[in-house]
Amino acid sequence: MTQKQLKLGAFLSVPGNHLAAWRHPDAVTETDMDFDWYMRLAQLAERGRFDTIFFQDTAAVGGSDKLARGDLTRSKLCRIVKLEPTTALAGLAVGTKHIGLIATATTTYNEPYNIARRFASIDHISKGRAGWNLVTSQIEDEAGNFTANPHMAHALRYERAAEFYDVVAGLWDSWEDDAFLRDKDSGRYFDPDKVHFLHHSGEHFSVRGPLNVSRSPQGRPVVAQAGSSEPGRELAARTADIVFTAQTELDDARAFYADVKGRMAKYGRHPDEMKIMPGFSPIIGRTMEEAQEKFQRLQDLLPDDVALSALDRFTRGMNIEQYPLDGPMPELPDTNAAKAQRDLIMTMARRDNMTLRQVARSVSAAQGHRMLVGTPAYMADQMQEWLEADAADGFNVICNYYPAPLAEFVDQVIPELQRRGLFRTEYEGTTLRENLGLARPANAFALRRAAE
Amino acid sequence: MTQKQLKLGAFLSVPGNHLAAWRHPDAVTETDMDFDWYMRLAQLAERGRFDTIFFQDTAAVGGSDKLARGDLTRSKLCRIVKLEPTTALAGLAVGTKHIGLIATATTTYNEPYNIARRFASIDHISKGRAGWNLVTSQIEDEAGNFTANPHMAHALRYERAAEFYDVVAGLWDSWEDDAFLRDKDSGRYFDPDKVHFLHHSGEHFSVRGPLNVSRSPQGRPVVAQAGSSEPGRELAARTADIVFTAQTELDDARAFYADVKGRMAKYGRHPDEMKIMPGFSPIIGRTMEEAQEKFQRLQDLLPDDVALSALDRFTRGMNIEQYPLDGPMPELPDTNAAKAQRDLIMTMARRDNMTLRQVARSVSAAQGHRMLVGTPAYMADQMQEWLEADAADGFNVICNYYPAPLAEFVDQVIPELQRRGLFRTEYEGTTLRENLGLARPANAFALRRAAE
Repeated sequence: MTQKQLKLGAFLSVPGNHLAAWRHPDAVTETDMDFDWYMRLAQLAERGRFDTIFFQDTAAVGGSDKLARGDLTRSKLCRIVKLEPTTALAGLAVGTKHIGLIATATTTYNEPYNIARRFASIDHISKGRAGWNLVTSQIEDEAGNFTANPHMAHALRYERAAEFYDVVAGLWDSWEDDAFLRDKDSGRYFDPDKVHFLHHSGEHFSVRGPLNVSRSPQGRPVVAQAGSSEPGRELAARTADIVFTAQTELDDARAFYADVKGRMAKYGRHPDEMKIMPGFSPIIGRTMEEAQEKFQRLQDLLPDDVALSALDRFTRGMNIEQYPLDGPMPELPDTNAAKAQRDLIMTMARRDNMTLRQVARSVSAAQGHRMLVGTPAYMADQMQEWLEADAADGFNVICNYYPAPLAEFVDQVIPELQRRGLFRTEYEGTTLRENLGLARPANAFALRRAAE
Repeated sequence: MTQKQLKLGAFLSVPGNHLAAWRHPDAVTETDMDFDWYMRLAQLAERGRFDTIFFQDTAAVGGSDKLARGDLTRSKLCRIVKLEPTTALAGLAVGTKHIGLIATATTTYNEPYNIARRFASIDHISKGRAGWNLVTSQIEDEAGNFTANPHMAHALRYERAAEFYDVVAGLWDSWEDDAFLRDKDSGRYFDPDKVHFLHHSGEHFSVRGPLNVSRSPQGRPVVAQAGSSEPGRELAARTADIVFTAQTELDDARAFYADVKGRMAKYGRHPDEMKIMPGFSPIIGRTMEEAQEKFQRLQDLLPDDVALSALDRFTRGMNIEQYPLDGPMPELPDTNAAKAQRDLIMTMARRDNMTLRQVARSVSAAQGHRMLVGTPAYMADQMQEWLEADAADGFNVICNYYPAPLAEFVDQVIPELQRRGLFRTEYEGTTLRENLGLARPANAFALRRAAE
């Protein structure tokens, strides 16, 4: 049997995922707004043969609600500004050749026609390397920036997201692959039998189509998702090519993997048609001790008020500053925000009997993801264990700051994975789907026409 | 007195502005979807020292309503699909260095926070070369693709557009130019006195801000407009850096120029702060006869049914196919669509006593713009005459097909303009504003703070 190989994403959480690592002497903080740095990071990930880069997104300054009320801790936070991800991807397409280009766009504050166009367009510009991470907006800060859809309840957001997906996927099939004739002699520009109107009319959207973009190189851009709630898992099972997830324990990760993949059969999908990629933050040392020292050095840069702010997303209606930092972790309310991450934090706190300070410092460092602190061989061991235990098809690598930790991963961990046969040494194909080992989807309208 | 110089835009109306010129043997029809061609055209325009490229946009397949009803003439039309312009611009930013990058985005089917982000982001990616052409959606086809805002009346669309502009311009000033400290010692990422909340609450929008993009290289991306109606002119006088317009006669162009610039003083603006750029389609010959022959060759490619379809936008509720092609031009209804262009067509038809066929063929060729048929010297004469008569500050050059007519313009007409001192031989600055001779706008919040 051939060795199963890992898929790897470089989650570019500029200027760094750790809330205070931007203060490290090596950190380049301009990585959040300077496009030349975006390009260097994407090219670095491509040199490492990563499957894809990935940008998270929220359409707001995080914590702006508290900033508006004069909370000066906010001025110590990074990840405040960045380039809008779809325009960044389009630019990066021009300076890269192989790596996938995935960005988040919310279904809560966009129109499906606009999203379908932009990602199809990036797929054309990149010659088949685009991906859309479909999310619902879980950050209360975003609601203040949009007139429509004052923050929707969790269930309703997911209903809208599911219908949004159907419209976008339908629009991507508006034109059959060979619809454009451009026949100068007959004067026919396209074959009218090969253009399809969506005529969608649902609870949330009415969209006629067709899309004014021809079918893209991948047929449809790759669709990623990151929701871990019940409706999130169901939508992923029906529609996602990639699932990004925060998993810190092997057993939990295995259970999640089995649960989501187990839901696919009822949608006529094979488990291999989805790649589940938990995230982790690497801190790489030549020895375990060196790695631990590097981690401690980052934690030393983190003031307590900044650490506490990492819990902002989970503390709505609760004044967490009132609780003693060295007392037990208080119960976080069951919010409308990121449900799954909230549950993860509470499980970790109870299991390890953590104080509020410990929880805050842990979340500040890894943002709910796993922190992998060790040697390149240790990291390869961990990734191999999760891969072989059916807990992951690959990983999303999230750096604490840029560019040094990403360069270390590319130069030290990737070669170790390659030596073990766990990772490619050259890209297998020219499109993101090909590199992920996913089939190019057939055009749904063409299939229906062929069946008639 | 120094010679006043022309500003030039390359309107990339891919695969060609003329409805049938794509059938010309030299025409490359893949220019509508192939990004490599977009890049070649942008680089060609940059070689000619054009101020900017410009993409029009509609969020629909033009004529899709008739196509849905089985009208097969539609399959003979070009400009059916293309790349989504903001992603195209971001990609083109990476392969060009000097030329401006302007694209249309509608205020009718977008949210201002999303538009502010995207254009600010392109301004960062291009290091100060982005421009937004603000329009209202006048094409009935678009309404079918969007759930919100079923096609709004003309006056209401402009009210929304004006408020949309205010929100976008306000969001662009969210951060003062020096707001980001990134001070590793103190741990302060930004200066909280230099971030500004918009707290906009109006008829159409409620938007708090701040934008999650730092202030862009141009302060604010260039804003272009193309509305010629009464509210369109008023909005342009208050807000536009560039006005694109369709003008076929010198006297009309002078009147338009005087009218729009005459409205600026009441908004505290100097007439030089806006560049008015009528469009024209060049057909270039070594002699006038050769140019006329080239024009005739394009018109010979145009079937009557395709020619009639050029009037689609103006014939809603009217069955124009019933009128005799060689009879007098019937009165076009006063629609909710492009008012100014409709009036232009009727004026032309009456003045020149044109038949329906003649009007249809004329609109098919130039899409309401001026058709300049002649030698490079003749074109330079015409441009110089309009410039010196205060009818234009420059021109938007619209090609019938690509790439040959654009290459001819760059290689034959630009040198003639340069010989006369009417056009730059090198770019003056590094940003689009600098090349247009427009000041970098001060941050409105910083001004207010300084005044307190």
